Amino acid sequence: MVGGGVIGLAVAWRCAQRGVRVRLHDPAPGSGASHVAAGMLSPVVEAHFGEDELTGLLADSARRWPAFAAELTGATGVDLGYRTDGTLVVGLTGDDLAEARRLWSYQEGLGLPITPLRPSELRRREPALSLRVRGGAFAATDHQIDPRRLVAALRTAAERAGVEIVDSGVTALSRRPGRVTVVAAGTGATALTGLPVRPVKGQILRLRAPDGAPPGFRHVIRGYADGEPVYLVPRADGEVVVGATVEERSDTAVSAGAVLRLLRAAVDLVPELAEYDLVETVAGLRPGTPDNAPVLGPLPGRPDVVAATGHHRHGIVLTPVTADLIADLVTTGVADPLLAPFRADRFTVPVGSMAPASSSVPAELLRGLSC
Amino acid sequence: MVGGGVIGLAVAWRCAQRGVRVRLHDPAPGSGASHVAAGMLSPVVEAHFGEDELTGLLADSARRWPAFAAELTGATGVDLGYRTDGTLVVGLTGDDLAEARRLWSYQEGLGLPITPLRPSELRRREPALSLRVRGGAFAATDHQIDPRRLVAALRTAAERAGVEIVDSGVTALSRRPGRVTVVAAGTGATALTGLPVRPVKGQILRLRAPDGAPPGFRHVIRGYADGEPVYLVPRADGEVVVGATVEERSDTAVSAGAVLRLLRAAVDLVPELAEYDLVETVAGLRPGTPDNAPVLGPLPGRPDVVAATGHHRHGIVLTPVTADLIADLVTTGVADPLLAPFRADRFTVPVGSMAPASSSVPAELLRGLSC
Repeated sequence: MVGGGVIGLAVAWRCAQRGVRVRLHDPAPGSGASHVAAGMLSPVVEAHFGEDELTGLLADSARRWPAFAAELTGATGVDLGYRTDGTLVVGLTGDDLAEARRLWSYQEGLGLPITPLRPSELRRREPALSLRVRGGAFAATDHQIDPRRLVAALRTAAERAGVEIVDSGVTALSRRPGRVTVVAAGTGATALTGLPVRPVKGQILRLRAPDGAPPGFRHVIRGYADGEPVYLVPRADGEVVVGATVEERSDTAVSAGAVLRLLRAAVDLVPELAEYDLVETVAGLRPGTPDNAPVLGPLPGRPDVVAATGHHRHGIVLTPVTADLIADLVTTGVADPLLAPFRADRFTVPVGSMAPASSSVPAELLRGLSC
Repeated sequence: MVGGGVIGLAVAWRCAQRGVRVRLHDPAPGSGASHVAAGMLSPVVEAHFGEDELTGLLADSARRWPAFAAELTGATGVDLGYRTDGTLVVGLTGDDLAEARRLWSYQEGLGLPITPLRPSELRRREPALSLRVRGGAFAATDHQIDPRRLVAALRTAAERAGVEIVDSGVTALSRRPGRVTVVAAGTGATALTGLPVRPVKGQILRLRAPDGAPPGFRHVIRGYADGEPVYLVPRADGEVVVGATVEERSDTAVSAGAVLRLLRAAVDLVPELAEYDLVETVAGLRPGTPDNAPVLGPLPGRPDVVAATGHHRHGIVLTPVTADLIADLVTTGVADPLLAPFRADRFTVPVGSMAPASSSVPAELLRGLSC
């Protein structure tokens, strides 16, 4: 295993549960995109035009989340902050509402559970919303967890299942008989594998309700505020995550302009947030691919190297399905059909430069397997 | 000495230079209001209605700054970031400009050096200003230094002059023959002395120009932006301080609303600041008095205790005059006439509850003096 974010830790846990000896390399487990993520489990409101196959995977993984969370908490005692209050999508102005409505109409068309609400219903459901908010919709099945608690729980669970976590990085993928290497290194996958994974910068804020109180709202709020998309994720412990920029750049500086835009949109939608403490401003790098979908499967020409990266904005929601299916692939050599759209050989490569496409791991690699 | 902010350190340095044995108590020197201050030396644009005596003291101290800075840098080698580019006062909207103009007309009326500029002159002088800025004025003698460098320099200078810095606090002021205690404890003075010093919260941001460049503007900018007062202090090393709230409360939490208002005003006035890194958000507590002027002199009934606190928003500019005159008072027993308006007995006290007013230190205390 290379990479100790949520994907790497979860794959390692699942592999170890299946009897595989796992050594996981990461100089600082959980310190990458997992540390910055907001933790929305949003297959519905994250269903975007042109991403049908990804939408299917998001929905599948979201359905696995309740059992996954219960098992993980059972194994570790860690409360993941799993909340099922659901997500409100709202528009501040008429233009914002029109933009939001176009997307949720598309989501309704896919048969996804999203319900338009009258403004009075919206306000009854979430009185903290600004009186300026023009309208919205409710996605009851779009839930949330706290990614930092998830990292802590996965690490404990993995170690208890026998995973050895080594605090050093990996700079090359040597071939060793009987060993499969899973690369869950986020944006680090490019240097290791040549896969076209690009860093996509996200800036995010963490606020905290004053005086130890819980936030004054309970739904995840996905809003459009004067053209600015923003989400607000309230946690029971008082934290509210406000995110996130999506920037095609690879630095992790926090910029004044991004903080301004996020705060303005947040306060426009939920005015009481102005009185919350601003406790953290942070930027991370999501691993993005050319089609914004993850890469889940063996590398062309290197069946002993299995990629599990490119999760972009969806790493948290995709953790259960990734862990289950990659662990299955590693232990059985057979790729679940769900993985077919996410093979590593789908990106354009020069003809003849790589071995024939494959989504399975050869049987000879599986004897005496470690990963 | 009680208190190792800029006032305490400077008084200690000056006392030690005059041959007084000085022990300075502070559990964390320089970590209070001095650490949060922006460092404007602004006797002109800080001249407010109804504060004539304070204005005189500010102007006197500002005149001492060039020699004070030169002496301090000469004694320590520390570059204080002293800049003499001057201060621009600007108004974003017509209403903002009207408000700014009323104040600078008052300042002109006092004979202070402030010069209204035509918009074209303003833009020629500072091209980074937003095209929306309606007008402004120039205060050539309002300079700036970096307070964190000032703390470092004063500490070095004080220690080299023989001051003993003790990293413990003081909870009571015992009487000891031959010892004068100077209380420069900022907001901590209330508990020690009973003086009516209240904490006035200030939130401030530190930005940094990208890629190690200096900021794209060189003047201190004092602006009014849609009713929001803000200042921008550019340093040669790339830092820009954006401040500050003035809040009658005593917590040091950074609030989302304050950061939003400061960033919005800053970016409205100087748009390029949106691209700067946001590197620090911090709040401090200024020591304020009922008339917003400092307390400089012996306590009623306790001629062995000399207050040097209550500097509120003016601690940095008032450092030289405070250090000079308090050191004179401690070593000679005679109060400079400049100190008369700032005596500790000027606040309302029950008749007969205190000893007669005094601004001097009795001669018997001065034999074998230490402080």
